[in-house]
This record gives sequence, structure tokens and C-alpha cells, in this order.
Amino acid sequence: MGGDNAPAAIVDGARRAADGGIRVALVGPPGGMGDTGGLPELPASEVIGMDEDPAQGVRRKKDSSLVRAAEAVRDGAAMATVSAGNTGAAMAAALLRMGRLPGVVRPAIATPIPNPGSGRPPTVLLDSGANAECSPAMLVQFAQMGAAFAAARYGTGRPTVALLSIGEEKSKGTPLVKEVHALLAGGEYSSTFEFIGNVEGRDFFHGVADVVVADGFTGNVALKTMEGSMRFLIGAVTGILGRPDLADDAAAVIPELLPLAAELDPEGTGGAMLLGVDGVSVISHGSSTATAMVNAITVAHDLAVGGLVDRVAAAVTEVEAPGA
Amino acid sequence: MGGDNAPAAIVDGARRAADGGIRVALVGPPGGMGDTGGLPELPASEVIGMDEDPAQGVRRKKDSSLVRAAEAVRDGAAMATVSAGNTGAAMAAALLRMGRLPGVVRPAIATPIPNPGSGRPPTVLLDSGANAECSPAMLVQFAQMGAAFAAARYGTGRPTVALLSIGEEKSKGTPLVKEVHALLAGGEYSSTFEFIGNVEGRDFFHGVADVVVADGFTGNVALKTMEGSMRFLIGAVTGILGRPDLADDAAAVIPELLPLAAELDPEGTGGAMLLGVDGVSVISHGSSTATAMVNAITVAHDLAVGGLVDRVAAAVTEVEAPGA
Repeated sequence: MGGDNAPAAIVDGARRAADGGIRVALVGPPGGMGDTGGLPELPASEVIGMDEDPAQGVRRKKDSSLVRAAEAVRDGAAMATVSAGNTGAAMAAALLRMGRLPGVVRPAIATPIPNPGSGRPPTVLLDSGANAECSPAMLVQFAQMGAAFAAARYGTGRPTVALLSIGEEKSKGTPLVKEVHALLAGGEYSSTFEFIGNVEGRDFFHGVADVVVADGFTGNVALKTMEGSMRFLIGAVTGILGRPDLADDAAAVIPELLPLAAELDPEGTGGAMLLGVDGVSVISHGSSTATAMVNAITVAHDLAVGGLVDRVAAAVTEVEAPGA
Repeated sequence: MGGDNAPAAIVDGARRAADGGIRVALVGPPGGMGDTGGLPELPASEVIGMDEDPAQGVRRKKDSSLVRAAEAVRDGAAMATVSAGNTGAAMAAALLRMGRLPGVVRPAIATPIPNPGSGRPPTVLLDSGANAECSPAMLVQFAQMGAAFAAARYGTGRPTVALLSIGEEKSKGTPLVKEVHALLAGGEYSSTFEFIGNVEGRDFFHGVADVVVADGFTGNVALKTMEGSMRFLIGAVTGILGRPDLADDAAAVIPELLPLAAELDPEGTGGAMLLGVDGVSVISHGSSTATAMVNAITVAHDLAVGGLVDRVAAAVTEVEAPGA
């Protein structure tokens, strides 16, 4: 029931994913989701709005589609949830109903950032918004969980992990970043990934690392700045190419630009993922179309079947660090 | 002597600025700067490299062009410095030789972010990298200094000031951001600017505020992420338009894209500025061309003549805040 195009686009996407062989159930008000094409329905009478306070929404609306979906995973009726709704509420529902994996200090949101034209899989940025405040131990675990995700999602063997900072030197950054740099460079936690040091905001889109680790505040600022920059520039170029006097030339140029636009489109990546909870929780853009939902459902399915949760659980260790 | 194209592009830009009526002196090794066209020279035998440790460079290389230039302002021989060299070293030289303005806790780097097509002047982002760690009082002063800069540089009356965060609600962000939000919303420090609340990374390029305030770590990550995103996308589009099979159409389209590219080009903005020191210090991109230097010198001149330093000094107040 979440997202700007719910429930129509969500149901449409679910039906298409089911046609492709994935077993999908819909969570929402019985009879209130339009033509569900006979897909199984799990009843939920409430909806947490896009602008509602996440924690409060989950606490108060116990019969909301987000909470009921997370409970379906908890109860073994489903292996994964997919939502285009309120990101914070989807996260809170997963955290509270699926629960944290043993040893995980805090779950994190992992967002794939495309590397167009490089032939490399997307770079996984985490935390991209779950935790505004982070300890060194949390960031080390983000590295472990991000590497497990890159391996499960893209088949990357021994993923490279970088730390988002404001210079390549280990002396650059906040005390948090410097501490995490020292911990990751020490090698104690790097059995399953290769720490390649600090990267900067300008290194995105070039495939500089398989995983980029940041606290949730910095990661969210970086992610939204990327999205805003891309959207602005694509909009400006599209505006110019849409001018009547350029119609003939634009007709030749635009088709050549489409593959690039497609690679940059967040709809293609399947959405973000909450790592560190006992279940698969995929969070799509609020503006997700049916096609985006098909992608998100496919990713959720593949990760559930591929054992993402077990891989994340196995990757996370206890981290001894100041302020852990 | 700083920057990728020094000294040739620097000297060329200085000569062109001087032809335009600005009194420019060159700081560097006498006879070692090429054809200076008779511009006054201030001797400096050393150069702080682009990758050199800033603090160490300034401490050890007392006869470097960056240090001598800052001393020229301190001694009243000049009103402003312009450098395309090591940003950290330019900052350290300005801080140590020009000195902080009275009452300023920490100087900050202000970077103009263009708002193409909006008809609005650039948005001033500060701190964009001087202080990785910030207190609430510092961020309040950044708001004051940024507003004074926007007024001096763009003639903006009562500039709008926003706080970079991860959501519009005052409850969003780090403890630092929440504390600064409360201070700025309280109105006590807003006599010369209008605080409009939080903005997000996706709000850049749309002229959402005249000034955006952030700690130097977050500001630098946002700035480099913008630059990287823009450079990546412009490069990708340029690559496609450069294909031989699209030559005819590209010939029609490219000239129409140039005004947009020009508005986004950091060379046109005159560079970043260190605010809070007792002098004008403009810091240009390391890759600055002669044209970028002309712009930077012109901006430095106009701000010096327009009394930027006095305006910043008058804007800054003592801020009482926890952890100030």
C-alpha cells in the first residue's frame, strides 16, 4: 500500500513478477487492492503514510501493510518484503518485527550506485540513511555486511571496501572516520573483503570500490546529492533536446543517450536493502513504477533464495573499538 | 606558483586581470615565473606542493609563495590573495599569517554552487572543507559569515540560510544538526538572514537557499559528490555526442548545451573563499586556467574593495551553545 503509485503499480508489478515464476503475496486491505489476479492476499487494514513519523507509525498502526508484511517474514510465511512506502517505517517494521541478526549493533541501508559503462557491478553504499549517528564498531560491521551483500547480489569474490572521507590520506576526516580507517586497515576484520582506504564523493560512478562505507548521515547526504545532481542535469539536457528547433537532431541523439539513462535509473537497481535484520527487506523509491517493482521483487527473491541473511549473519563479528 | 598549470596560466590570468584595471602582484621566484609583463613581483623562493601536508608545508616553507602572499595582506601590501595551489596550505597560510577575525571560532571555506537557469545567484555552501569537526557555535557563525558573503558578493538583501541535513523535519540529522537547527530557528542570531530550515543534498542547483550551512566534512562530501556526478554525466554525454555517426546532429546540439555547461563550470564562479580571516583569500581549483584566474582575481578584487572582511567581522557574534 506504500508509494506514490500504490496500490495499482505495486499490484501490477507483483502480478508480472508472479507471471515470471516468483511466489508473491500482497499485503493490504482485502478487496481494496484492485485486480490482484488471484495472488494470495495477507490482510492489513491500515496504511502508514509517506510523511508519517516512522517509529510512531509502526507502533500505532499494528495492522498496517508494512507491519504485517514484516510479520509474515518473522512467522515464516514469506522470505522477503518489498515496499515502495515510507522508508523509515519499512525499516522500523523490519527491525521490530523481523529483529536484528545476532551480534549486529545496528542494521544499515545499502543502496546500489551504478557504474555506467564500466562493466562493473554497482557500488554498494551503506549506511545510506538508517543511522544518523554511528560508532566505529557499526561502520566496521557495515563493511562486513556490505561485502556479504556484494558477494550475494553480484557474485563479487572478496569485494573491495572503501571508506567515504574528504581525502585519500588516513589522516583525513572526522575522528570516527580515522578510527574506522585504523580498524579496517589493521586487517583484523578483513578476512572476507579487501580494504582499499578512503574514497571521496567524486569517486562514485567510476567503480572505485565494490562497497563504500559511511555513517548514515554522510551516506544519505552523498546519495541525495548524487540523485539531485543527476536529476538536475538530465532534466536540463532533456529540456534543451526537447526544443522544437532541435527536434530532428534530438531524434537522432536521444536514442543513443537512453542506455546511459537506463543504467543511471534507480528503477533498474531493485532498490535499497536493509542489512542486519533477520529477513530480506527491499525498499524501493516512493515513485516506483510497476517495472521498478518487478526488479525489486526479483532482487528480493534472488537474495532470499541465495541465502543473503545467512551470509550477512556469518560475516558479522564482534568489533572491539572505543565507543563501540 | 600553485596549481596544475602554474606558473604559466596563473601569470597569464594575472596579466589579463591587470589589463582590465586590477592591480595585481605576482608572488614567486624572481625571474622564475616566465613573462610577467612588468607586473610587480613579490619574491618567494619556495613552493608548497599540491600533495604536501598543509600545516607542515606552511610551517617549514616560510619563503613559499602561499606564505609570502598571505604576509603581503597582513602587512598591507595587498588586500587579497588568489591561489590555485594546495587548498589546505592556502587556508593554513591565510589563517596563520592574516589571522582570524575577532570573535571567529573557526574560519570556513565558502563555495558558490551555481543555480543554472533559475536566474538566482549561486548558493553559498560553507563549510566546504576547512573543519572536519564542528561545534554548534561554529555552524551558527558559518551562517552569519555565509550571509555576509552572499550580501557582499551577490548583493542579496537578507539572504536565506538553510542547514544541510537528511530530511526537512527539525528532528532529522545528527545531534549537531539538531542543535544548530534549534539555535538558528530561535531567531537570536538571525538579524541579518532568514533561516528557512533543513535542506537535503537533492536541493542543490535549484536555488533553494542563498546559503547552505554544514560541517566541513559533510560539506566537502556534498561538494565533491556534486562535482563528481556532474563531471561523470557531462563526460558520458560528451562521449556519446563525440561519436562520428552523430557528428551532424551533435554539431547542432552541442552549441545549445554550452550555456548550461558554462553555468556549471566552476571556472566561472571565481573559486572558493576562506571566510573569517583578516583578509580576502580566494582559492581556485587546482586545474584553473588563465580564464579561471581572471575570474578569481576579479572576485577577490571586488570583495576587497566592497569591504567583505568588515562585513564578515560585523556579522559574527559570540554564540552561546553547548560544546561551543
